[in-house]
Amino acid sequence: MQVIETIKEMRAVTAKYRTEGKTIGFVPTMGALHEGHMSLVRAARAENDIVIASVFVNPTQFGPNEDYTRYPRTFDEDCELLEREGCGALFFPSPEEMYGMAGSLTWVSVDQLPEHLCGLHRPDHFQGVTTVVAKFFNIVDPHRAYFGQKDYQQSVIIRRMTADLNFPVEIRVMPIVRESDGLALSSRNRYLSADERLKALALVDSLRLAEQLYSQGEKNPAVLTDMMQRSILGGAPNAKIEYIAVVHPDTLEPLKTIKGTAVIALAVVIGTTRLIDNVIIE
Amino acid sequence: MQVIETIKEMRAVTAKYRTEGKTIGFVPTMGALHEGHMSLVRAARAENDIVIASVFVNPTQFGPNEDYTRYPRTFDEDCELLEREGCGALFFPSPEEMYGMAGSLTWVSVDQLPEHLCGLHRPDHFQGVTTVVAKFFNIVDPHRAYFGQKDYQQSVIIRRMTADLNFPVEIRVMPIVRESDGLALSSRNRYLSADERLKALALVDSLRLAEQLYSQGEKNPAVLTDMMQRSILGGAPNAKIEYIAVVHPDTLEPLKTIKGTAVIALAVVIGTTRLIDNVIIE
Repeated sequence: MQVIETIKEMRAVTAKYRTEGKTIGFVPTMGALHEGHMSLVRAARAENDIVIASVFVNPTQFGPNEDYTRYPRTFDEDCELLEREGCGALFFPSPEEMYGMAGSLTWVSVDQLPEHLCGLHRPDHFQGVTTVVAKFFNIVDPHRAYFGQKDYQQSVIIRRMTADLNFPVEIRVMPIVRESDGLALSSRNRYLSADERLKALALVDSLRLAEQLYSQGEKNPAVLTDMMQRSILGGAPNAKIEYIAVVHPDTLEPLKTIKGTAVIALAVVIGTTRLIDNVIIE
Repeated sequence: MQVIETIKEMRAVTAKYRTEGKTIGFVPTMGALHEGHMSLVRAARAENDIVIASVFVNPTQFGPNEDYTRYPRTFDEDCELLEREGCGALFFPSPEEMYGMAGSLTWVSVDQLPEHLCGLHRPDHFQGVTTVVAKFFNIVDPHRAYFGQKDYQQSVIIRRMTADLNFPVEIRVMPIVRESDGLALSSRNRYLSADERLKALALVDSLRLAEQLYSQGEKNPAVLTDMMQRSILGGAPNAKIEYIAVVHPDTLEPLKTIKGTAVIALAVVIGTTRLIDNVIIE
């Protein structure tokens, strides 16, 4: 696997693949890779001739009080994992390479969709995400790009940005990968102590409860989120619930009643670690 | 010359050129073409294998009280002019084709640079420009794109957007084309009555005056713009001067004194027609 640190070299590599008529599947990541990321690499390998991954902890998508500096960086292990899954090239630029020494003035932003869920609590986060993804699309020039459903709102916003700006890239969103006890995989799970790791199960347990209530006929989001809140605080009494919401799968607007497909999403802080999870119900 | 109305067909045409190894020069316009546009087409033809032009009166770059609906539309003449200059394909999409029936939520915007010159008087104008140019770049996939220096601020903002988002497109900015009496060519000159057409010379005359004073040693922007204002109101007493500014060529920030290259730019309303012009002094 080639490790590429400059935009110029990345362009040369991708141009060569393009000239050879190869299809390129792109897996953008912030590193600290786990089985969730690996499922994206495997999907990309199955659907394309070449897989290009990126590892870039993007400063513009972190708020001033968020975990940019302490975000886990595990480059050697990331390389091993990617190599093992048959990733062809890894783009690993520095922040200076991506944004220039003098910084960047241009933003790609999406209206409305960030006004829900995580966007309410992380202002400017999604504008950082869409900007860096647009840059990656222009540098890597992939046929398809792979994102995880765990970041549900992100996947909807990236789909929309890609369509609205006519990027010739197919967006593929892959299912959440979970530990055997149900915890959604996340690079931030590394922050959890043993006790917090147990308490973190409160997220998935509450989603399972909501699914069960829904399957038994409960279509009222207010009832579902109320039951979920009780469930979370039962399992993790000190948890700080940032939001629990039942939203439309495309507009992300809160639903008053569930008809057709809906997404139940939540963000909960366990100790000092902010975790998110969701399920799609239909 | 092929006239192409859909994004899908445009992509197919450009992909074919790319496969054949041809370089593509792109000339985005709002139609109502004149010799200024033709100079862009000629430059594009000289520097590329194929020229693709677009004619699209972009609604998102007009303010609510601006001239979107009455902007001149001269499609048949535009086609003739383009054909005569050897343009290979014309992209002529509808607003619905470009923005979808349901509209678009995504914006490409540049910080700081729109806070000067025209941007102060046309809020959201440049965000409309950068968004549609980003879309065109993704649809037309050109090697080079051509813009006129008459829209100086636009050229600086598009250069910056292209660099910041890593679009693999070279931006080429071509000199202002003028009538024999000096009036800068503009599609909006069609709005002028015979009397207004004469008064419109006040713009270029004031710029010539500033150039002359500068060459005689006057380096103080306040003095230059004051003399320009007197000159304009001498030639066109009822003119409404929107701005006269001496700015840095890259940052567009107003200069306190001229050292090295500077841009003198102005916007003046003659009758009901807003005209712009500029000179680069060095």
